[in-house]
Amino acid sequence: MNKVLIVSRQQETYQRLIQQAQLPQLEITDDPRLAAIILADPPNIAAHLSDYPALCWLQSTFAGIDALTKPGLRQDYTLTNIRGCFGQLITEYVMGLTLAHTRHFALYQQQQKHRQWLPHRYSALSNKTMVILGTGAIGSHLAQAAHTMGLRVIGVNRSGEPASHLFAHTYPLSELPQALAQADILVSTLPATTATDNLLNTTSLSHCQNTLLFNVGRGNAVCEEGLLSAIEQDHVAHAFLDVFKHEPLNNQHPFWQHTKITITPHIAAESFPEQVFDVFAANYLRFIQQQPLMYQIDFKRGY
Amino acid sequence: MNKVLIVSRQQETYQRLIQQAQLPQLEITDDPRLAAIILADPPNIAAHLSDYPALCWLQSTFAGIDALTKPGLRQDYTLTNIRGCFGQLITEYVMGLTLAHTRHFALYQQQQKHRQWLPHRYSALSNKTMVILGTGAIGSHLAQAAHTMGLRVIGVNRSGEPASHLFAHTYPLSELPQALAQADILVSTLPATTATDNLLNTTSLSHCQNTLLFNVGRGNAVCEEGLLSAIEQDHVAHAFLDVFKHEPLNNQHPFWQHTKITITPHIAAESFPEQVFDVFAANYLRFIQQQPLMYQIDFKRGY
Repeated sequence: MNKVLIVSRQQETYQRLIQQAQLPQLEITDDPRLAAIILADPPNIAAHLSDYPALCWLQSTFAGIDALTKPGLRQDYTLTNIRGCFGQLITEYVMGLTLAHTRHFALYQQQQKHRQWLPHRYSALSNKTMVILGTGAIGSHLAQAAHTMGLRVIGVNRSGEPASHLFAHTYPLSELPQALAQADILVSTLPATTATDNLLNTTSLSHCQNTLLFNVGRGNAVCEEGLLSAIEQDHVAHAFLDVFKHEPLNNQHPFWQHTKITITPHIAAESFPEQVFDVFAANYLRFIQQQPLMYQIDFKRGY
Repeated sequence: MNKVLIVSRQQETYQRLIQQAQLPQLEITDDPRLAAIILADPPNIAAHLSDYPALCWLQSTFAGIDALTKPGLRQDYTLTNIRGCFGQLITEYVMGLTLAHTRHFALYQQQQKHRQWLPHRYSALSNKTMVILGTGAIGSHLAQAAHTMGLRVIGVNRSGEPASHLFAHTYPLSELPQALAQADILVSTLPATTATDNLLNTTSLSHCQNTLLFNVGRGNAVCEEGLLSAIEQDHVAHAFLDVFKHEPLNNQHPFWQHTKITITPHIAAESFPEQVFDVFAANYLRFIQQQPLMYQIDFKRGY
């Protein structure tokens, strides 16, 4: 029998899903000493990793696993995250907020309250350029939708190797300024690694001009003071932030009341338990057949 | 020399565009008696058609030409409208407002004002169904984007003939109820004809269940009392209306303060003068070469 222990805000849902599925030779345990497998939200398990002497494989319920790749934490187990199901949700978030902005939906909502019939000028997305930082599953999904919506799409990744034909051009991170100079819309889908810390700062953002900035990756990528100064100087026209260095965002943080910053509480892509469970179940079947697991994290790279 | 007369809210812009283009053998006139060609916003010219004894061709600056196909008006000239440039804008409007609704953007905006970090549940568009009434250029453009955003797309047109592979199924208007019964999102792109008058009424809308309703075609398609009653009974979850039977919408109209109706002032697709002029110029070159004009209206069908 393999024993799995669950540590999640959605504890009961995962228990139910695992029990219903009747996966072969798997039972749920509450005893950390017995658990060879953990299904967990990374922030909730990170401080307790040393309590699990039998740990062999940890399936993260999040895409973001940076809580588990911090220095000093054990790395003697297989860590897998979830991918694939976030592209759709991130795409909805970015395209929806982009269009809400360019098509003045909030303004029309205000006008409706005052029974005011007053059209405003706008321009179409066609022929505008979206720069996507990160050309993995999420970035590629977004690129496809952006392309269909008439946008020209540019990718930025570590190597500069083209990820797909959807990217009109792919720049390596070292040529970030060339990419940012073309960005009407800039979207960071980057994971939290040392290479992405404060990547978007006063210097790099100075290459933007009236850009809509989205951070749907990790909060570490945006230097907060740098963003405020880039908005001040019109390098950034509006920032849409779903992730922050510290979450929830501190009640006193200057971002809250900034008219050119839209804050959402880390909802761009939710881990739907059913989808997480599908990944867990598929990986469990691989686990018992001693096949390589899907979506393994390289502790050195951090993703 | 061919004489063109302009009747538009964008009079000066069109004058400038025509003068700059230096089209062969064309000059602008102010004298109705001399004008063989009219470039006009349909509502602004409809009442004055009889003032133009030399009228040969009228290029509408709008897609909607129903002001000119009303009974009793002359039909002894070639009427052309504009198409092609609206698909992008209608798509932006429908996808943007759909996502703003499903992803709770207005709610997060309210929460931000109160520095409130509070995620809300949502579901993805994937596997939901969009029913598009009208499978012409606009409906097909929308179908493409909706398809990319993960939606299943169903079309409804006069004949029921499939318009493209993007529509999973195409129903004839006579089977409207079967289509509406599947609609998570319902979009009317229909022109104003006698066949579309009050097409969406208490009876037809009773086949919907918690549907998001968009009218981006013409106001005549929606029976206003029928819509209010369909909302009351949860057949329609929310209505997004850009067109109305009478525009601007009367200040006292019950739609204004309805929490489940979003009103926009006929901005889903704007005629950008540059794009209208491109159609006019291309048609003018055909006109002087006595070739068939693009986008001719059949007065009998009304589109």
